[in-house]
Amino acid sequence: MFSKILIANRGEIAVRVIRTCKKLGIQTVAVYSEVDADSLHVKLADEAYLIGKPRVNESYLNIEKIIEVAKETKAEAIHPGYGLLSENSAFTRRCEEEGIVFIGPKADVIARMGSKIESRKTMAEAGVPVVPGISFPLADVEEAAKTALEIGYPIMLKASAGGGGIGMQVVHNEEELRKAFEGNQKRAASFFGDGAMYMEKYIENPRHIEIQILADKHGNCLYLWERECSIQRRHQKVVEEAPSSFLDEETRKKMGETAVQAAKHIGYTNAGTIEFLVDEQKNFYFLEMNTRLQVEHPVTEEITGLDLVEEQLRIAAGEALRYSQDEIKRDGHAIEVRIYAEDPKTFFPSPGTITVFETPNGEHVRNETAVTSGSAVTPFYDPMIAKLIVKGKNRQEAIQHMLHALDHYQVEGIKTNIPMLKEVLSHPEFQAGNTTTNFVNQYLTKTTAKK
Amino acid sequence: MFSKILIANRGEIAVRVIRTCKKLGIQTVAVYSEVDADSLHVKLADEAYLIGKPRVNESYLNIEKIIEVAKETKAEAIHPGYGLLSENSAFTRRCEEEGIVFIGPKADVIARMGSKIESRKTMAEAGVPVVPGISFPLADVEEAAKTALEIGYPIMLKASAGGGGIGMQVVHNEEELRKAFEGNQKRAASFFGDGAMYMEKYIENPRHIEIQILADKHGNCLYLWERECSIQRRHQKVVEEAPSSFLDEETRKKMGETAVQAAKHIGYTNAGTIEFLVDEQKNFYFLEMNTRLQVEHPVTEEITGLDLVEEQLRIAAGEALRYSQDEIKRDGHAIEVRIYAEDPKTFFPSPGTITVFETPNGEHVRNETAVTSGSAVTPFYDPMIAKLIVKGKNRQEAIQHMLHALDHYQVEGIKTNIPMLKEVLSHPEFQAGNTTTNFVNQYLTKTTAKK
Repeated sequence: MFSKILIANRGEIAVRVIRTCKKLGIQTVAVYSEVDADSLHVKLADEAYLIGKPRVNESYLNIEKIIEVAKETKAEAIHPGYGLLSENSAFTRRCEEEGIVFIGPKADVIARMGSKIESRKTMAEAGVPVVPGISFPLADVEEAAKTALEIGYPIMLKASAGGGGIGMQVVHNEEELRKAFEGNQKRAASFFGDGAMYMEKYIENPRHIEIQILADKHGNCLYLWERECSIQRRHQKVVEEAPSSFLDEETRKKMGETAVQAAKHIGYTNAGTIEFLVDEQKNFYFLEMNTRLQVEHPVTEEITGLDLVEEQLRIAAGEALRYSQDEIKRDGHAIEVRIYAEDPKTFFPSPGTITVFETPNGEHVRNETAVTSGSAVTPFYDPMIAKLIVKGKNRQEAIQHMLHALDHYQVEGIKTNIPMLKEVLSHPEFQAGNTTTNFVNQYLTKTTAKK
Repeated sequence: MFSKILIANRGEIAVRVIRTCKKLGIQTVAVYSEVDADSLHVKLADEAYLIGKPRVNESYLNIEKIIEVAKETKAEAIHPGYGLLSENSAFTRRCEEEGIVFIGPKADVIARMGSKIESRKTMAEAGVPVVPGISFPLADVEEAAKTALEIGYPIMLKASAGGGGIGMQVVHNEEELRKAFEGNQKRAASFFGDGAMYMEKYIENPRHIEIQILADKHGNCLYLWERECSIQRRHQKVVEEAPSSFLDEETRKKMGETAVQAAKHIGYTNAGTIEFLVDEQKNFYFLEMNTRLQVEHPVTEEITGLDLVEEQLRIAAGEALRYSQDEIKRDGHAIEVRIYAEDPKTFFPSPGTITVFETPNGEHVRNETAVTSGSAVTPFYDPMIAKLIVKGKNRQEAIQHMLHALDHYQVEGIKTNIPMLKEVLSHPEFQAGNTTTNFVNQYLTKTTAKK
């Protein structure tokens, strides 16, 4: 096992990784930007180094600076967390070149899965169901119109390099398609430097269900069940659960085995997630692969009893997986909500100083945060300030537990999405398990403006 | 199941009980004193009623006032928490008279176990090993001296009604006995209104290990393993763990079965704890029975996966236990520390206003507290401000997790025993499992003055 690692991240995920390192007796090196000098991850790490200005390009995305700190501190490995450099294959490659273990898959696997078109093609080759669509970029609007007729409307238009909903649009007929195509193409080109567009069949009332996998360097791969992540606003998850109340055992097993098959096909190593869209008939289609730890990994930890960061570290250090598929538990029901510093009506970030920050406590209540009373929410980073995870014997108990925990939660000085989360959790349709990716638009009326 | 209950307590335990009620859909009625109007238990309960002045005699111990609130609010049952009225048989009897369910055993069982002499006699009858000693009060110092010779020194002198170490003293010879006897008798008479004294063989380097039991109203009784509570200061527990690293499976089983036998003998119902002293040869002796939920119940919850408050409510409502002894899990290792507002050197309470209160978070970290930044610690109530519970796969992992969590803990404005807790957890003797009730006096050198 490593004796020292560097954590190339900030906020709650840096704190999370440090915690497992302490448990395993691994020394930790934190990096931080000028506005993060007093951050919790800096306090809790064994060593901490300033790497630059607040803007991520000048600090947390500064590959050479981070590599330099790792070399100077003799860190044997780097944990990238999520976001930031976690799926940046150039960073992974630099780690590989410098002989620093990157805690994640190989650079070429990251690159391959980072492209929506390339990953889709690869998955189809691996025998993974993909949404009917094309696996090559559309040349122009005429080709788009022709292809759409072949697939059949409604159609989802997507930018290859897209993320966070940018470059995505549903079109119901040719007129809408012609209106949408060039605008989305331009936006993708300007946001991501890549205007390649593709399209696929739009699945009505889909669910977003993803499979957590673990793969070691010895060819072993396991699935750790699913996470139901359908509750989203602006194409970003806000409520995640495990297990999904929608899946039956047969579909669950089939999805798990398909995810393992996909991971093995690409020579995947470390923790990863295969995201699927699931339609009303429980057909599932590959959506994308996240080649890193997910924000919502705690719900999987809660029901399996495993520490995913520990598994990541062990795999990266060359250990073989210590479990067989039959030994992976599934116990109880876990729910996570993401607490954002944002206006619940508009979803716009709400930066400012948090004057009061009080988290709920007690049994089966897990807080993941680096924020305290007095913390500033700056516009430089993701406005997610905390995650709250609860566990119950079953879904109903977990929902009641979460609602009580949210009543207990107190954040003053900034706006948060807590009112919206309460509306989701207390909504009869949510409680009945009717969670599709349209949920927020379809059902929320009190706390949230319709799009 | 009840539709509404009253919680006759305050602080973290009131918050704890409310949480389980919410999970089960039970309405809650809180009571509070004048200084507790802004307390968390008042905020989280569905209804809350002022019952009097800050001093417990004029509020939380005011039996008639509490009964009156229960009747007015149509609460069907009362949960007493721990401390305060939880082991007051007069209160339980008043509940019984008024047709309000007391969430605990019957009044006569509480009364019988409340007397050290009576409980010892009863346990001996039940076939439970007791420390060699007498089961009748000592008439005077002459009888004490004669009896001590028969039992053999060292001797522990005890007040029948004692608690918190008051009225207890170890004497090593007749001279010490003669010096100690009358003083302790007088103190017991003035503190408890009962000067009855007894004596027993003093066990050297004993461990305090207790068995949690659950007994329903249908004659079923289970043991939920043990808690190791040897780390004490001033005869009060500060660190508790489950399981005990000292017990072997045979002793564990024997203690569990003995506890069940004891509970059945007295017709015990609801959750209860039989405390044992365990000597270096693993002989165990009945110490006392606590006829209520214990402060340290979370460590049992963490390793068994059960919610003890839920079990209490179900038993009180007349349900049969839903498990057989074979179904009681024992998974991982849990440790609890009690955070006190006290000077770690002298153990004296440190009242004041808590200016900063920041609890650790993350997986397998459980905070139990009703305190927040800005809370006042008054001299009216117990100075325990919070409990911190962690869980690990094994004892070593739990210790590392606890040490990291204590590093994360921040309390400003008052003194706390956190430095002492860190010294305990990081001490090689603690880590080696050498936990006896003498631990604090024997090993702590940095944070704590020797007695």
